[in-house]
Amino acid sequence: MTGRRILTCAEDAPGADMHAFIADLYPLCRSITGNGLRETLRRIQTHIPLTIHEVPSGTRVFDWTVPREWNIRDAWVKNSKGEKVIDFGASNLHVVNYSVPVHMKVSLPELREHLFTIPEFPDWIPYRTTYYHESWGFCLSHNSLSSLRDEEHEVCIDATIEEGHLSYGEYFLRGISDEEILISCHTCHPSLCNDNLSGVALATFLAKYLRTLSGLRYSYRFLFMPGTIGAITWLCLNEPHIERIRHGLVVACVGDPGAFTYKKSRRGNADIDRAATHVLAHSGRKHKIVDFSPYGYDERQFCSPGFDLPVGSLTRTPYNCFPQYHTSADDLDLVRPEALGDSFAVYLSLLEVLEENGTYVNTRPKCEPNLGSRGLYGLTGGTTGEKERLSLLWVLNQSDGTRSLLDIAERSDLDFRLISASADALASKGLLAERKPERTEIALASAGNTDGNANPAPCKNCEVLD
Amino acid sequence: MTGRRILTCAEDAPGADMHAFIADLYPLCRSITGNGLRETLRRIQTHIPLTIHEVPSGTRVFDWTVPREWNIRDAWVKNSKGEKVIDFGASNLHVVNYSVPVHMKVSLPELREHLFTIPEFPDWIPYRTTYYHESWGFCLSHNSLSSLRDEEHEVCIDATIEEGHLSYGEYFLRGISDEEILISCHTCHPSLCNDNLSGVALATFLAKYLRTLSGLRYSYRFLFMPGTIGAITWLCLNEPHIERIRHGLVVACVGDPGAFTYKKSRRGNADIDRAATHVLAHSGRKHKIVDFSPYGYDERQFCSPGFDLPVGSLTRTPYNCFPQYHTSADDLDLVRPEALGDSFAVYLSLLEVLEENGTYVNTRPKCEPNLGSRGLYGLTGGTTGEKERLSLLWVLNQSDGTRSLLDIAERSDLDFRLISASADALASKGLLAERKPERTEIALASAGNTDGNANPAPCKNCEVLD
Amino acid sequence: MTGRRILTCAEDAPGADMHAFIADLYPLCRSITGNGLRETLRRIQTHIPLTIHEVPSGTRVFDWTVPREWNIRDAWVKNSKGEKVIDFGASNLHVVNYSVPVHMKVSLPELREHLFTIPEFPDWIPYRTTYYHESWGFCLSHNSLSSLRDEEHEVCIDATIEEGHLSYGEYFLRGISDEEILISCHTCHPSLCNDNLSGVALATFLAKYLRTLSGLRYSYRFLFMPGTIGAITWLCLNEPHIERIRHGLVVACVGDPGAFTYKKSRRGNADIDRAATHVLAHSGRKHKIVDFSPYGYDERQFCSPGFDLPVGSLTRTPYNCFPQYHTSADDLDLVRPEALGDSFAVYLSLLEVLEENGTYVNTRPKCEPNLGSRGLYGLTGGTTGEKERLSLLWVLNQSDGTRSLLDIAERSDLDFRLISASADALASKGLLAERKPERTEIALASAGNTDGNANPAPCKNCEVLD
Repeated sequence: MTGRRILTCAEDAPGADMHAFIADLYPLCRSITGNGLRETLRRIQTHIPLTIHEVPSGTRVFDWTVPREWNIRDAWVKNSKGEKVIDFGASNLHVVNYSVPVHMKVSLPELREHLFTIPEFPDWIPYRTTYYHESWGFCLSHNSLSSLRDEEHEVCIDATIEEGHLSYGEYFLRGISDEEILISCHTCHPSLCNDNLSGVALATFLAKYLRTLSGLRYSYRFLFMPGTIGAITWLCLNEPHIERIRHGLVVACVGDPGAFTYKKSRRGNADIDRAATHVLAHSGRKHKIVDFSPYGYDERQFCSPGFDLPVGSLTRTPYNCFPQYHTSADDLDLVRPEALGDSFAVYLSLLEVLEENGTYVNTRPKCEPNLGSRGLYGLTGGTTGEKERLSLLWVLNQSDGTRSLLDIAERSDLDFRLISASADALASKGLLAERKPERTEIALASAGNTDGNANPAPCKNCEVLD
Repeated sequence: MTGRRILTCAEDAPGADMHAFIADLYPLCRSITGNGLRETLRRIQTHIPLTIHEVPSGTRVFDWTVPREWNIRDAWVKNSKGEKVIDFGASNLHVVNYSVPVHMKVSLPELREHLFTIPEFPDWIPYRTTYYHESWGFCLSHNSLSSLRDEEHEVCIDATIEEGHLSYGEYFLRGISDEEILISCHTCHPSLCNDNLSGVALATFLAKYLRTLSGLRYSYRFLFMPGTIGAITWLCLNEPHIERIRHGLVVACVGDPGAFTYKKSRRGNADIDRAATHVLAHSGRKHKIVDFSPYGYDERQFCSPGFDLPVGSLTRTPYNCFPQYHTSADDLDLVRPEALGDSFAVYLSLLEVLEENGTYVNTRPKCEPNLGSRGLYGLTGGTTGEKERLSLLWVLNQSDGTRSLLDIAERSDLDFRLISASADALASKGLLAERKPERTEIALASAGNTDGNANPAPCKNCEVLD
Repeated sequence: MTGRRILTCAEDAPGADMHAFIADLYPLCRSITGNGLRETLRRIQTHIPLTIHEVPSGTRVFDWTVPREWNIRDAWVKNSKGEKVIDFGASNLHVVNYSVPVHMKVSLPELREHLFTIPEFPDWIPYRTTYYHESWGFCLSHNSLSSLRDEEHEVCIDATIEEGHLSYGEYFLRGISDEEILISCHTCHPSLCNDNLSGVALATFLAKYLRTLSGLRYSYRFLFMPGTIGAITWLCLNEPHIERIRHGLVVACVGDPGAFTYKKSRRGNADIDRAATHVLAHSGRKHKIVDFSPYGYDERQFCSPGFDLPVGSLTRTPYNCFPQYHTSADDLDLVRPEALGDSFAVYLSLLEVLEENGTYVNTRPKCEPNLGSRGLYGLTGGTTGEKERLSLLWVLNQSDGTRSLLDIAERSDLDFRLISASADALASKGLLAERKPERTEIALASAGNTDGNANPAPCKNCEVLD
C-alpha cells in the first residue's frame, strides 16, 4: 500500500502552462486526418514521448473505412473587385472542414447555398464539417454575410482529398499492474479551445505529471485521436487488449469557468462512476452527475454494447451546453488558466481514488481491536479527532473482504482520503490485510514507471512514427 | 416486425357509439345471474361474435358455489291509498339486488328496517346487494323516505331465486402467437354507467376494432362476467390455460371526465405495469399510478397468489373515488362520449406498446455503425431531428439482447413509439435482429385473425349459447 | 399461533417502579470492574434470578485482556486549612474513574493538570475515565475550580487496582424455541441516570415482566455488562452459541423525555431493523431511524464484522445528543417515570412483532376464499371495518410462503397488530397454515418458561455467583 499515495492534488497545478500549450496549438487547422492533426501530435511529443500511429486510408475498421486524407493550403472568396471577403488565412473555421477543392465563379445566390452563419450571434463564425458527404462551403459571421454584394464572386478552396493516413497519438505509461486506466481526448477540432484543445492540454499535462511519479499501481494509456473515426480505429486495432481497461475517462471541455459535469459510463455504477461521484461530492465544487446517454464524445464508442467499457466523461460545462460551442467564440479567452489548473487537480483526485482503492480484511474481526494500545487513537499526531477515530472504526467494521475503501467512503460519507489514510494506519499495525483480487495482476519486473510500447505486438495496420 | 404496427390511436375514437351502446344497456336490470345479465351479453353479440357460457347453479368453483339464478319481474311499495311510493319500474336500483321474493303488509317502522338511503345526497338512490345473505330491501332517495307516512305499506318483490345458470361472455381473437392479452370487465351492475357499462362498452369496441386488423402478434381474450363470482368461475373452468396470459387489464370506470389511474398488478413490475406507466407518462394526460392492493375489481382474483397474473387495472376516476359511485347519479350524464373515446385511445396506445415491444440484438455492437452511409440520419424524411437521432443511438446502444424496447424507452425517457420506429428503421437496414424469446411461440397456421373458440376443448361445466 | 399474543402494551407500565430502582442504584460507584458493579448486579437479583459471572483479571478476550479490578473507598482534595474542597462522598463523579491511588501534596498548578471541568456548564461535574492509561484525576464544577486558592492542596485517592474479576450479569429466560432475543445494557457508569441506569432498569423490568408470561416463542437473554470490555468478554466466552441470537437490542438512554431514536444494525435490513421502523412509524410517537455507524454502545461489538449480529439500539435521545450526557446533570431529575414507562411499552410492542411474526401459506390460493360464509367479515364483532377487511385480504393475497407478516404489514402500510390479528382469524378458519422455517426450532420439553442456565455447558473461564 505504501508507495501508492503518490498523487497529491498539486498545489501548483500547471494551469498557465496548459493555457500556453493551447495557444500554441490554436492556429493549426486540424481535421480527422491531415497535416494539422499530425503537427498537433508532434507538438504533444515536446511534452511526452507520444507514439504517432498512421493508419492508411481505406483500412476497414468495424463498420467504417478510414477516409482519405484532407489537406488544405488556402481558401478564400473574392468579390468582383478581387477583395477577399472570406479568408481562410484569418480563421481556419471559415472553411467547412473536409470541403472538396473548388475554384470557380458563382453568383451570390449560388454562393449563399454554401455559406453558414449564426444569426443569433452575428459576430461569431460557426464550425461546420462535411466529412462523409462530398461538398464544400464557407462559414462566416452573420454580419459579414450581410455585407456581401449581389455580384459574382470567385471561390477558391485549395485543398486535397487523397489516399493518405489517419493519424493518432498514444502514450502508454507502465505501472505495477498491467491493468489500465484510459485517458482519451479528441484532437480533430481546428481553432476551438474548450472543445477540445483544453482536453488535449489536460491529457498531455496529466501524462507529463504522472510519468514523474514512481509506484503507480495502474498502467495508464493516453489517446489523442480524431473523434469517432479515431476511437473506432483504435478500438478495432486494439480489440484483443481491451479487457485490460479497468477505468477510463474521456476528457473534453475542461477549460471554461463553469461547474463540473460527470457523465456516467453505460454501466452506471462502475468504479469510475462511483469514484467521480464521491470526489466531486467531497470536493466542495459545484457539479452535476448525469446518466449515460449514447451521444457526446468518444464514450459513445467505448460504451458501445460490444465493448461496454467503464469509461465516463468528466468535463466542466459539457458538450453543446455553452453558447460558444462550435463557434469562433470558443477561443483563447473562453478557456482560463485557473479553470484548467482546477480541472487538472480534480482529475488527479479522481485518479488518486482509483489508485488507492482496495479491499481489505480486518484481521481481528471479532469485536473491536484495542486501538489505544497500538497508539491508533493518535493517528493525526495530536489528539485524534472524532472524524479520524470514526474513520478507523468504519474501516475495521466494514473490511470483511467484500467492501472496498470506496464502498466504505460511500457508506460512512467520509472523504476517501481519510478512509484511505485510516486503512494505511490499520494495515501498518497488522489490523488489515489486503484482499487480492481474483484476477492475477501481472506485476511487471521493471521498477518504477516506464514509457512502454503502446501495444505488446506491433500493429500491422498502421505505421508508427516516433 | 412489419405487420405489427397496426394499432394507431384512432383519431375518430368511437366515443359517441360507445355512449349510445351504454344508453342501450342502461335500463336492463343486471345482477350476478339472470336474464338482465343474459340480455346484456346478447346485445354485445350485436357488435362482436361473443360466446355466451352458462354455468349451472351449484357448480363448485374453488371455494365458492355458483349461486341460484335471480330474476325479477316487478317490485313496489304502496301506501295505504294504493299509490306506489317506491317503484322498480322507475329505477331498478330501487330493489336491493338479489332480494328474496316478498309480498306483505308492514308498518312504517318495520318497513324502514328494509330501506336504504344516502342522507348526504338526498336526491340519489343508493345501489345495494344481498347476494350471499337471504334478505330483501328497497333503496330510495332520502327525500322520498322523508315523505313516507306513518301507516301500513304493502310491499311486493316479484322475484325468483331458483336453480339456473351463471352467464358470462367470452370473445377470443386469435393473433399470430397463442400468448394472450386478457381484457376483462364486470357486467353485473344494473343501471349504473361508469361502473361499469363504460367498461363493457370499451371492451366491446376494443374487440370490435381489433378484429378489423390483421397481423396482431398476441391473441386477445375478452371476458364479460359478473364481478367476483364470474371471475372465480372463469378462472376455475380455464385453469389449465391460464399460463398463456402474458398481460391483462381490468376495465372499469372509463367514462367519467376525471384523470386516469393505473393500478399495478400484484407483481408491481410486470410489463403491463411498466407499459401503462410509460404510456400515461408520455400521453400528456393527467394520471396517477397506484400500487396494487387486494381490493377493487376482478384483479383481486387474477392477482390472487395461486395465479399472480400480470393483470392491472386502467380506469379514469377509480372505484369508490367519485361521489356518484354506486348511486343513481352514476348515470348517462356522468359518462361522456369524449371521455369514452379518450379512454379507448389510451387503451390502444397501451396495447400498441405490448404488441410492438421486443428485444433486439445490435448486429454491429462494436462501436457505432455508420448510420449516415445507410441514410438513417434521414429517418423522418427530411432532416433527422435530434430526438430521432438520439433514439437510433439509444436503440443501438442498449440492444444487447437483454433489454426490450420498453426498457430502452424507460432508460432514454423517449416515447416508446419513437423507440419502436427507430428499431424498425434499424432492423430494415440489418442493424438489429430480433431476439426470439426462449419459450416457443406457437405460430398458428391461419392467416390473419380469426374468431376462435374460446377454449381449445369444450368446457364440460358450462353450456355454450351462440 | 395461539399462546403467542401474550405481550400487550401494559397499560400500567412500571415507570414509577423503574424510577425508584434507578434511585436505589444511583449512589453506587460503578466502574468496569469492582464492588460497585457487583452490588448493582446483586440489586438486580432482587427483581430477577440473575446469574453473576466473575471473570478473572488477565483473562484474554479476543484482542483484549480483562483488567485488574478497581475499588475505591474514598477520595478528596483538601485545601491548606484541611477543608475538603473536592469530596468523593458528595459525588462519585468527582474521581476520574479507574484513577490509581494517590496521596500527596501538590501546588495548585500541579493539581490543575489533574482537574476536569465543563466551562460551558459551570455547575456540572463531568464524568471521566482512565481505564487503559494509568493516571489519576478529579472532576468538579467549573465554579468550584474558580474558587480554589493558589496554595498547596492535599490529594487523596484511597483506591486499589488489583487482580480480581470483571463481573457481569446474565439472565436467560427459556421460551418454546432455543432461538434467542438478546437484550443488552451497560452497567459500568457511576452516578449517571439516563446513561445508563435507565437502560439497566428497563432491561430488568422487561425481564421481570416477560417471566410472568407463558408461551413465549423466543428465548430471551438479558445481559448486564460493563461497556466494551464486558461485551467483548461475553462474546469471547459465548462464541459457540452466538448463532442462536436472532434479534437483539442494546438498551440505553430510555428515561429522558425526548423522542425515540432507533439505530439500525450493521445489516441495515434485519428483521429487528424493520420491526423497529414499523413499530415506531405506527406508534404515533416522534422518532428517528438512523443508519448503523460503528460508534455508540455495545452494538459496536455485536455488529463487528466477525459477528455481524442483527442487533440494533433503541434509545430516546441518543448517546452524546443531550447536554447532560456524561455529566452530573444526568441525574434523577433527567429521567422521568412516564418516559421510562413509555419506553417500556415501546420495547414490548417491538418484542410483540418479533414474537408474532411468521410466514404463512394461504391454503386456498386460487382466487379469494369465501370469507363471508366463514363469518370473517365480522372479525371485530360488529360490522367489519374497511381496514379489517382490507387486512384480511392483504394477508391472504401475500401469504404465498415467501412473505412474513412483517413484510405484509410493510407493503400494506397497515399496523402489524391488525395484520397479525387477521392472520390469527384466517388460521383459525383453516385458511392459513404456518410455514415452518427451514432450520429446526428445538422445541424444549418444559411447559411454560423456565429460568434456564445461561450456558448449556458451564463456562470454564468464569466463576458463577448465584
